[in-house]
Amino acid sequence: MIQKHKGILTVVSGFSGAGKGTIMKKLLADHPDRYALSVSATTRRPREGETDGVEYFFRSREEFERMIADEALIEYAEYVGNYYGTPRRYVAEQLDAGRDVILEIEIQGALKIKRRFPDALLLFVMPPDAKELKHRLSGRGTEPVDVIASRLERAVKEAEGIGEYDYLVINDVLEECVEEVHSIIKNEHRRVTRNAERIRAMQEDLASLNSGPQRGEQS
Amino acid sequence: MIQKHKGILTVVSGFSGAGKGTIMKKLLADHPDRYALSVSATTRRPREGETDGVEYFFRSREEFERMIADEALIEYAEYVGNYYGTPRRYVAEQLDAGRDVILEIEIQGALKIKRRFPDALLLFVMPPDAKELKHRLSGRGTEPVDVIASRLERAVKEAEGIGEYDYLVINDVLEECVEEVHSIIKNEHRRVTRNAERIRAMQEDLASLNSGPQRGEQS
Repeated sequence: MIQKHKGILTVVSGFSGAGKGTIMKKLLADHPDRYALSVSATTRRPREGETDGVEYFFRSREEFERMIADEALIEYAEYVGNYYGTPRRYVAEQLDAGRDVILEIEIQGALKIKRRFPDALLLFVMPPDAKELKHRLSGRGTEPVDVIASRLERAVKEAEGIGEYDYLVINDVLEECVEEVHSIIKNEHRRVTRNAERIRAMQEDLASLNSGPQRGEQS
Repeated sequence: MIQKHKGILTVVSGFSGAGKGTIMKKLLADHPDRYALSVSATTRRPREGETDGVEYFFRSREEFERMIADEALIEYAEYVGNYYGTPRRYVAEQLDAGRDVILEIEIQGALKIKRRFPDALLLFVMPPDAKELKHRLSGRGTEPVDVIASRLERAVKEAEGIGEYDYLVINDVLEECVEEVHSIIKNEHRRVTRNAERIRAMQEDLASLNSGPQRGEQS
């Protein structure tokens, strides 16, 4: 009677170093049938150890612009001279199959998704406090001072957009954080606004239960 | 730095026989420090075994109308010739103490609460399907046929208001249902709209981290 629930388009953003990637990796490992991770396309060059189709689909500028022209991306943006975008087909297929699709994208793309798909669920991952954020921004140990400074500057800008998100996720203890993300998405399926069909079915069933026997008694 | 979180005013409604009372009793037993159950005032007479201050505050019509005049109720309604209402003071005290306050009230009162306190969280408890609902409406075994019929009729009307609620809670297996209610309320504390202060603090901390060292370098 109730149609299979459609998946929820879930956008996860957060400051650089907030641990989004680690959280998502564990979330997908813990619940492989429930979630699907969207892989972005980009024109930036692969880093050491990155594989096409895993971290990103690595595309030339010409290929990327053809995808834009073909409307094969649900959002894209240019950042520091490179394109980044979300291929449409995989997202649509997975949502239809009832899987919650995770997009791990930056704030600019996240807000585009929210405007275009008001049903999307937007999560913002934060460290417990700003001091810890600074520690994490600089904590990889492989980046020069000016890179850290530019990340911090970017974080200030990103923080201005947090108000557009739906939930804050505080990344303190990884396991708890992953469980929290899972439970936020799971509960979101119980939102009244996402259950219009189920509610209508219950209303109709109730009405027919109500009218059925009563008419019988009256006749 | 972050002020203690205020509790969430949580309204729980549901069809007669959907099991709200049992769910709430278990929720409070499982998490006694986290939740507080608001006790309604009513002018209806106590049933066998009911105690003043436990199931309800039993009040005379005159006493109740004095509470209305004193604005000592956050909502009240008349139903089948009796008043039912929610005393203000206990709710306010518990919310300020950081406890999530549960109001188990019918749909008419719930919608008044939502209009007056837009931050209130509204949960609607449903059985898995209408057949099961009918079974539960009639399942107490102590009620005559016309009472069951009037409950069913009332359920039809109540179902029309479900769209105003925030979450559906499907009461199939009690333990799972209680856990779900708990996790919905817990996650609700992570809503961006309920964390304006935390976000502002993070933005200010970030801005001061950002301007501090950079000015030093530039001078």
